[in-house]
Amino acid sequence: MAERVDTVAILGLGLIGGSLARALRANGFCRRVIGYGHREPSLRRGVELGVIDDFTLDLDEVISQADILVICTPTLVAAEVLAAILPRLQGLARAPVITDAASVKGSLYRAAKAACDGSFPPGLVLGHPIAGSERSGVEASKADLYENHRVILTPVAENDSEAVELVRDMWLATGAEVVEMEVEQHDAVLAATSHLPHVLAYALVDALARSDSSEEIFRCAAGGFRDFTRIASSDPVMWRDIAIANRSALLDAIDLFSEHLGQLREAVAAEDSEGMHATFTRAKAARDDFAAILAQRGQGKQG
Amino acid sequence: MAERVDTVAILGLGLIGGSLARALRANGFCRRVIGYGHREPSLRRGVELGVIDDFTLDLDEVISQADILVICTPTLVAAEVLAAILPRLQGLARAPVITDAASVKGSLYRAAKAACDGSFPPGLVLGHPIAGSERSGVEASKADLYENHRVILTPVAENDSEAVELVRDMWLATGAEVVEMEVEQHDAVLAATSHLPHVLAYALVDALARSDSSEEIFRCAAGGFRDFTRIASSDPVMWRDIAIANRSALLDAIDLFSEHLGQLREAVAAEDSEGMHATFTRAKAARDDFAAILAQRGQGKQG
Repeated sequence: MAERVDTVAILGLGLIGGSLARALRANGFCRRVIGYGHREPSLRRGVELGVIDDFTLDLDEVISQADILVICTPTLVAAEVLAAILPRLQGLARAPVITDAASVKGSLYRAAKAACDGSFPPGLVLGHPIAGSERSGVEASKADLYENHRVILTPVAENDSEAVELVRDMWLATGAEVVEMEVEQHDAVLAATSHLPHVLAYALVDALARSDSSEEIFRCAAGGFRDFTRIASSDPVMWRDIAIANRSALLDAIDLFSEHLGQLREAVAAEDSEGMHATFTRAKAARDDFAAILAQRGQGKQG
Repeated sequence: MAERVDTVAILGLGLIGGSLARALRANGFCRRVIGYGHREPSLRRGVELGVIDDFTLDLDEVISQADILVICTPTLVAAEVLAAILPRLQGLARAPVITDAASVKGSLYRAAKAACDGSFPPGLVLGHPIAGSERSGVEASKADLYENHRVILTPVAENDSEAVELVRDMWLATGAEVVEMEVEQHDAVLAATSHLPHVLAYALVDALARSDSSEEIFRCAAGGFRDFTRIASSDPVMWRDIAIANRSALLDAIDLFSEHLGQLREAVAAEDSEGMHATFTRAKAARDDFAAILAQRGQGKQG
């Protein structure tokens, strides 16, 4: 089977970029995958591990060679990378399609427009694979990371439809399910399902760690607490950057949550047995439905 | 090896009581384990499954036969059971040692004093095994549920020291690690590590389920959200009762958390990069330490 494109370039060869590279090579989507970045040792390691075919440290070279250029850096860095790349595309006879894997889309949408004098570049297709791991780095990358996972694309009216199609095909080749959303909707949904839970877990663990009984608290905590706080072991720099990039949607999500927690607090204080039971029962039903969805997708072995 | 006592009676033969019965029979702590309750079919099932040796539906009979009587009912029921049992012990030549496995200790301490005209019964040793499962019922019981798990006893000044020793030995026989705490400390620690996380998970899932974007939210949530919300699949009746029984400590825990969340919200709103980073970093360090503690105890395979 012929490859869909010749060259895919990965900018930022960590878990996300490395896993995409492995999947594309394994599935024959392109003839070759090249890496680009500032750190030669990790790119060289990528070649040694068989994650990429080759690499370059030269941005103009990667732009001239790539058919698709995937920015797999952390969120705030992705905005800087876009600001460096987009001006170089203007006037090129043949520009690569650009896409990304960052956790926030609104901040990149604004960064792209700012880099192009207020007009959004038609060949930039913003995206976000909903997959990850507590582990990080190219050593942790694996070809099946995206299998049965969702990738959200947030195309806009200015987009070239062929560019959108190409990015969609790339992610489909990794075994992912591709869905489309508006930029604002993506950021609100991710704030709710991911950014808010991280903030809650960090706030809880920090509050307990700083309390007088912290030693007894952590000594007596068990499995439920372990699962609930697992995401507080995530990278602080990455999550600080996400909180900054998605500030507005995250604040909305925190406020929505605080309102509901306040209502539940009142029910506890008033010993409102029916009110508590109604909330807990609705939540259990929604959580059980969600676990069933994940199980259907083959992601829900742990319930 | 001779048994430590002749008869242990389990009141409430579910996951917790059934697992204790299995462990005591497996480890030869007593000659026999009997069940007591109102529902004959589930007690009969317990005999069929080999969980208990025998059962009775008569409270006076179980009191006269047992050396140790373990109340393994849900929290609010345990208070009612205590109120029924304690008055019957007065004047008995030989009364069994009573203990329990409920999640809240202060409410049972008060119930016991109320049932004994204001004085705490010396033979009642309040306790709480920190173990459980999403599964429930005697069918889910297993002999190794308590191995390497903590059991908290909350003896008080009024307690007979031999009664405390006997209850301690019973739990040690299951492979558990036994620690002692004051009643108030137990309830504060459990509010922090278990009751508050359940309330937060229920509040989050209910808030998202009732939002306009709930369909997209649950469709796009992934592994981190699954772990974070797993405890929202717990039994609503059990958790409503725990919230009622531990109302005061739970309200304190909610308020402590809300204060910290409010501070973190201000850091996000102010784009206070250093403040967020400091909080996330402290939390990650505390969570990583906690995961290491669990791993040492053989409970932490999942990090």
